[in-house]
Amino acid sequence: MPLIDMAMLVITGGKVEEWEKKLMDIFRKQAIPFFLINNKADLFRVTEEELKNLKEHWGTDVVNFSAKTREGLDEVIALMRKHTPENTYRQTSMLAGLIKPGDVVVLVTPIDSEAPEGRLILPQVQTIRDVLDNDGVAVVLKEDQTARFLRDNPIKPILVISDSQVILKTCKDVPENIPTTGFSILLAHYKGDFKNYLKGTPSLKNLKDGDKILILESCTHQVSCDDIGRVKIPRWISQFTNKKLSFRVVAGTEKIPDDISQYAMVIQCGGCVLTKRQIINRLKPAVEAGVPVSNYGMTIAFVNGVYDRVIQPFIRKDEEKNE
Amino acid sequence: MPLIDMAMLVITGGKVEEWEKKLMDIFRKQAIPFFLINNKADLFRVTEEELKNLKEHWGTDVVNFSAKTREGLDEVIALMRKHTPENTYRQTSMLAGLIKPGDVVVLVTPIDSEAPEGRLILPQVQTIRDVLDNDGVAVVLKEDQTARFLRDNPIKPILVISDSQVILKTCKDVPENIPTTGFSILLAHYKGDFKNYLKGTPSLKNLKDGDKILILESCTHQVSCDDIGRVKIPRWISQFTNKKLSFRVVAGTEKIPDDISQYAMVIQCGGCVLTKRQIINRLKPAVEAGVPVSNYGMTIAFVNGVYDRVIQPFIRKDEEKNE
Repeated sequence: MPLIDMAMLVITGGKVEEWEKKLMDIFRKQAIPFFLINNKADLFRVTEEELKNLKEHWGTDVVNFSAKTREGLDEVIALMRKHTPENTYRQTSMLAGLIKPGDVVVLVTPIDSEAPEGRLILPQVQTIRDVLDNDGVAVVLKEDQTARFLRDNPIKPILVISDSQVILKTCKDVPENIPTTGFSILLAHYKGDFKNYLKGTPSLKNLKDGDKILILESCTHQVSCDDIGRVKIPRWISQFTNKKLSFRVVAGTEKIPDDISQYAMVIQCGGCVLTKRQIINRLKPAVEAGVPVSNYGMTIAFVNGVYDRVIQPFIRKDEEKNE
Repeated sequence: MPLIDMAMLVITGGKVEEWEKKLMDIFRKQAIPFFLINNKADLFRVTEEELKNLKEHWGTDVVNFSAKTREGLDEVIALMRKHTPENTYRQTSMLAGLIKPGDVVVLVTPIDSEAPEGRLILPQVQTIRDVLDNDGVAVVLKEDQTARFLRDNPIKPILVISDSQVILKTCKDVPENIPTTGFSILLAHYKGDFKNYLKGTPSLKNLKDGDKILILESCTHQVSCDDIGRVKIPRWISQFTNKKLSFRVVAGTEKIPDDISQYAMVIQCGGCVLTKRQIINRLKPAVEAGVPVSNYGMTIAFVNGVYDRVIQPFIRKDEEKNE
């Protein structure tokens, strides 16, 4: 269920049974938009009067349809359009409110063993595009060029966005007065459960020997020997806490463990391939069970001691929005 | 044949018939590396002595193999490695020799109706990655930011690379002393038939009423109403020549017309999805028939009157290489 953006419930002869009622309960609980399709309308048609009653009773649209004769197809497509939340297909801007036309944004993008040959990884491409969509200027460089570029060129970027894996170096290389954050934190703010990440991340300080940590990764990228979710983050958290911890990685759309409350923390990746609803719903069981949740970039920044600096651009932006 | 990078010719019982001989003639003529696989070795094995004779006679490797028992599989894989040209799988740098570590390259990347939502098109991503691989700094901006960025920031880029569709505006916005070219021209130099493009492009001046022009596009992108190969280039060439011309587009791996000599010109796209061998072989019939060949970016620059400027960076580089 957590990956569903919109549901179409197929019934016949206008009959809603126990199973359909249970499904609708789940849809409502998880705030999943849905409507009813009365299929086989060529055999078991529902009158206009009955349709109206069904609509009122179940609180959503109901439509006569026949998969055989294709009757009602246009109406079904129109209802799919109506009920699909706009944020599942229309991208808004990650950087809206953070940059103005002409602003320069520096993107620190290391090329490591997991970078696809001759290409860039998706969050980097998405961010460059977002800068362009905001009429900004994206300065893309590797981590060993940051200090030199800022020293030799009298440019003051409005923002520096760094790969989280080199966030400590970037924070050292960029003067304190230039706002600095990570790609993964930008994604966390844009389509993660940012408020709960802010609450949950400091729990990294409270981890104890024997604690279990669940790592949620959304894509199924080729795993390398120095994988971020499987090797680097566990290593960094273990070093930071100096505790004996165990880690479990759940990748792609693999089911999240039922016994979520046995985990001391849940850490979600940036989710470049997911929608916001998918991430929020994936984290919901943990949030409801009171398990602290965090994000790759925010966790890495926290254990590197640069957390306050990298969340600052978003705290400020959200405060401005609320004023 | 023009799309083949390496061939494995399967024979049985060590017998090479007329058909195989014809194929080997074609491989040699088109400089396609190949080797022979003597299949069904479990039934019709060839002795070491015979293998040696076959190798000497046909001038390439021959290996006993059985698709049934998998005998010889390791050797076949080793020969595939040996005979596959390195440039079909290993990317070299497009910008090698053009930039040094720390150099700034400005990339002018309009976002038009064909740009994929939330992404960048492939040649742009490839070029950004190439800048990073050369330890350079890529400044990515839209065409309406070029003049402002260069005016407000005291940076002297080593090179400006522009989308060909806005090459005229970019050439106006960038001071004459900064080398300027197009993505498509960069690709043309890197893996096109650059020498023949240089010879062929000026033929645009000589087009006459009734001339036919063949446009070769290598990918199968979604065609929009203002498509570069189908609408813009035909329009620009027609305006430039003021002649009545007809255009034919061949896209993807669709076969090139046999009667190539009826065309007055052949114009090839940048070929971001092809290897150099694939492009060269695709153009070979035209080159051999004496039909002038050109490239999208070089043609656009020519009809916009900025041809000499945009080919300059490569002419200079190639001269340096030959000294």
